[in-house]
Amino acid sequence: MKALMQEFPLTLELVLERCRSVGTRTEVVSVGPAGPDRRTWSEVGERAVRIAGVLDALGVARGGRVATFAWNSHRHVELFLGVPAAGRVVHGVNVRLSDEEILYQVRHADDDVLFVDASLTGRLAPLRDGLAVRDVVVMEDGSPVHPAFARCPLYEDLLGSVCPPVRRFVPEPDDAAWICYTSGTTGHPKGVVASHQAAVLHSMSSMTVDSHAISRQDVLLAITPLFHVNAWGLPYTAAMAGTKLVLPGREVSGAALGALIESERVTVAAAVPTVWIDLLADGHDLSSLRRVLCGGAPAPRTLLDEVARRGLVFCKGWGMTEMLPSGTMQHLTPDTDLDSPGAAVTMVGRPTPGVQLRLVGAEGAELPWDGVAVGELQSRGPWVVRAYLDPEDDSNTSRFDRGWLRTGDLARIAPDGTVELVDRTKDVIKSGGEWISSLALEQALSAHPLVAEAAVVGVPDPYWGERPAAAIVATAGGTPPSTEELLAWLGTRVPKWWLPEQIVPVRCLPRTGVGKYDKKVLRTQLAGA
Amino acid sequence: MKALMQEFPLTLELVLERCRSVGTRTEVVSVGPAGPDRRTWSEVGERAVRIAGVLDALGVARGGRVATFAWNSHRHVELFLGVPAAGRVVHGVNVRLSDEEILYQVRHADDDVLFVDASLTGRLAPLRDGLAVRDVVVMEDGSPVHPAFARCPLYEDLLGSVCPPVRRFVPEPDDAAWICYTSGTTGHPKGVVASHQAAVLHSMSSMTVDSHAISRQDVLLAITPLFHVNAWGLPYTAAMAGTKLVLPGREVSGAALGALIESERVTVAAAVPTVWIDLLADGHDLSSLRRVLCGGAPAPRTLLDEVARRGLVFCKGWGMTEMLPSGTMQHLTPDTDLDSPGAAVTMVGRPTPGVQLRLVGAEGAELPWDGVAVGELQSRGPWVVRAYLDPEDDSNTSRFDRGWLRTGDLARIAPDGTVELVDRTKDVIKSGGEWISSLALEQALSAHPLVAEAAVVGVPDPYWGERPAAAIVATAGGTPPSTEELLAWLGTRVPKWWLPEQIVPVRCLPRTGVGKYDKKVLRTQLAGA
Repeated sequence: MKALMQEFPLTLELVLERCRSVGTRTEVVSVGPAGPDRRTWSEVGERAVRIAGVLDALGVARGGRVATFAWNSHRHVELFLGVPAAGRVVHGVNVRLSDEEILYQVRHADDDVLFVDASLTGRLAPLRDGLAVRDVVVMEDGSPVHPAFARCPLYEDLLGSVCPPVRRFVPEPDDAAWICYTSGTTGHPKGVVASHQAAVLHSMSSMTVDSHAISRQDVLLAITPLFHVNAWGLPYTAAMAGTKLVLPGREVSGAALGALIESERVTVAAAVPTVWIDLLADGHDLSSLRRVLCGGAPAPRTLLDEVARRGLVFCKGWGMTEMLPSGTMQHLTPDTDLDSPGAAVTMVGRPTPGVQLRLVGAEGAELPWDGVAVGELQSRGPWVVRAYLDPEDDSNTSRFDRGWLRTGDLARIAPDGTVELVDRTKDVIKSGGEWISSLALEQALSAHPLVAEAAVVGVPDPYWGERPAAAIVATAGGTPPSTEELLAWLGTRVPKWWLPEQIVPVRCLPRTGVGKYDKKVLRTQLAGA
Repeated sequence: MKALMQEFPLTLELVLERCRSVGTRTEVVSVGPAGPDRRTWSEVGERAVRIAGVLDALGVARGGRVATFAWNSHRHVELFLGVPAAGRVVHGVNVRLSDEEILYQVRHADDDVLFVDASLTGRLAPLRDGLAVRDVVVMEDGSPVHPAFARCPLYEDLLGSVCPPVRRFVPEPDDAAWICYTSGTTGHPKGVVASHQAAVLHSMSSMTVDSHAISRQDVLLAITPLFHVNAWGLPYTAAMAGTKLVLPGREVSGAALGALIESERVTVAAAVPTVWIDLLADGHDLSSLRRVLCGGAPAPRTLLDEVARRGLVFCKGWGMTEMLPSGTMQHLTPDTDLDSPGAAVTMVGRPTPGVQLRLVGAEGAELPWDGVAVGELQSRGPWVVRAYLDPEDDSNTSRFDRGWLRTGDLARIAPDGTVELVDRTKDVIKSGGEWISSLALEQALSAHPLVAEAAVVGVPDPYWGERPAAAIVATAGGTPPSTEELLAWLGTRVPKWWLPEQIVPVRCLPRTGVGKYDKKVLRTQLAGA
């Protein structure tokens, strides 16, 4: 027996429609050299609708790819809404990539046109001739345009010439909405293609209390760049909820962000731990802030302490580009005992509403959720991919298992669904047939009062196969503790056979483009040490 | 270009899976004559899964209808989860209907089997021979079973005999999940058939902050009966969030509910205004309560005052069975100025995430959201029906308009999406070619300090066509104010030509089965007065 519900395709047209209805009185504030640009969500929505006409004029076909090379601004958000709603696909290119990576991604994604911030034309200028796109559109942001792009059409001119909007291509729920490349630390990054329906449902999930809890009452500062998994999907969530959205542009120093939180009365902001550390060290009035959304890397204990001291809720989770990115969520309230096992950095909360998880052991058997068994975390759900963009990619077989995504994370799951990360399958140290968790060692080392950060990798060992080696950064202005002292410290916290072969003080740890420890580089450094 | 997301059919199997994973440590508490029954969500989920085997044993085909005649208990929730997850359709029959209506609905829905609470077998006994079902299953709830049903199979026996569970029929997203009849005040009620996908998305929407905001941290008391649009969808929402759920059984007096809130530390409860009035008048410790979910009828000002005095958030909305039922939501916080126009009883908030609205004028043209234009509210969305169960129903053409549901409500919509109800199209009073809002008159009358409740209808008038007439109930222990006094009171609040022709004090107002004013009855009473 079939039900009798309305046909109602879940596409980003709904999100666009919603920001234009419930968002007429909430603002999108974009910071630029000329000061903040303020407009309502309905204005942003109207402009996004007109992008259909711009793409028609540029001759971009249905399903054609539109690259962006931009900071977080209303223009960038308009493209993320308007390009998919017009039946094309938006591809946010990470502006911090190497020349080679930028050229690779634009070519690999088969981008047809590219929209670039004026302030980033200088960065792209050396690549101008190699960029495999038909047209470049410059988005004026108050900075001068590099001469290499002086003859390119301007975004505002194109938008202004399109009226009334033409909607030639109506998207379908399984149409591609956006492409984002993973920050793979080995080989080329892989393209992840999100559908319209996945983006809509991910947004609705982010509005739930147990996930990001974004509501119309919030003022959301999206520090995470749009080229990082659509800023964790938050601009869509804000559009759907009609939440005031603040976009910082290129100024993401602690002081700039602090000033923005103070002036816009921001209630919730999203960023990686390093940005939060700088931000909370700044002297601005952050009293409007209620929630800290933090991801991309584990948060050091000092950050958690500071968040709790300020009476804020710390929302940490686990996710990945392949999950758009939301997978699990945990809220630490000011009442949470940060010394309790449940608040450990490896505890990442329960699956967000819509995501299903399972644990699979080395032999391929599903493991119980008993808080003891360790296996690979696998996920499925309406916003989890089933393949990568490149049909030839080997990962399309190796990273998927009978309809589930193999996340590459080793974890335990407690009976109540709480996930405890043990390690990345590729970071875990295989020593004498047993596993040593690099994550657990890093956590134990970082807990030392004189250690700010620690990264642990496996280095080759002729007898054991691999042995752990650590690099540490001392707390600001402090002296790094001696190896003996650290080994004694670890001795009471981890099994004896986990003790690292070497503990090397360094000034800073190598990081990938998204701020994670670059263990590939570290492994080389420590193996040669 | 198609995206590469996993196939992930949105069905109630996901909700079942979720309550069994994130709900292992949260309870479902059911009140019965033998005291509270406590079990975890995973136990409830496991039992719900076994219902598939029970229905197989009873010979219920795929898509077959399963009627329930029960109070709110874990058994009833198990049926609402387990019957659809087993590929059949659950139909909650309102236990307060007349004999004729019960027989009509069971026959009309083509129910195959019926599950009845032991305590309700007495109610059904006179109808036993007329019940057009093949089997009746009795759910023991501590009450004696009426002899007419003494030979019926028992729910626990059937559940106990099914092991391991058999899953013969896997539901699809557009399969029917449940049937609920509208409380039509004219003619027979109409069957509404909800799909699995609609039920899942409605639940996710109810978890959003701007809607019901149900989270795992809550303790939810579902007073609204399951046979009223699946208790507004809240049991599914609680299952999905892993929220502790409290089910009051048949004891819904203010004292019984107050005791339950006190003992279970309930944070949020859902009920119609009359129940809330009794509940808040009770002397129990309600200090755990945070949010009041109130619907089904407009809340009197005295209730809002009491809710604010206690520091609670009042969540009121607008909806209907045809929308499962969520359409709009407004939260009144203790800071809200209840005298402000935005807090008026006619203001019902913004569309819940997923619902789209439009206003259509008498001529069929779409009207602007300017807070002035009044038109019929029409809705669409993933949980809005496109037709009623009966394919012959005239409403299938009259109640739908090019893919939108004609809700029968007249409203204004402000530019920010806030809906102000003006009247039901069938209750609005057409006087001399103009409209008089019965709702606005009721609101103005109820605002008088000596008036507890007021209902206004149109009565025939040879010259004007219709004129308003009012019935009022005086505040407890008070004397009703005179007609002259009330006319003077109204004179400063509504246009002069709106003043009712008669204002009749009554001891109580006629109500329908779901607690709304029965304006059909009132119209007859006042027309004859």
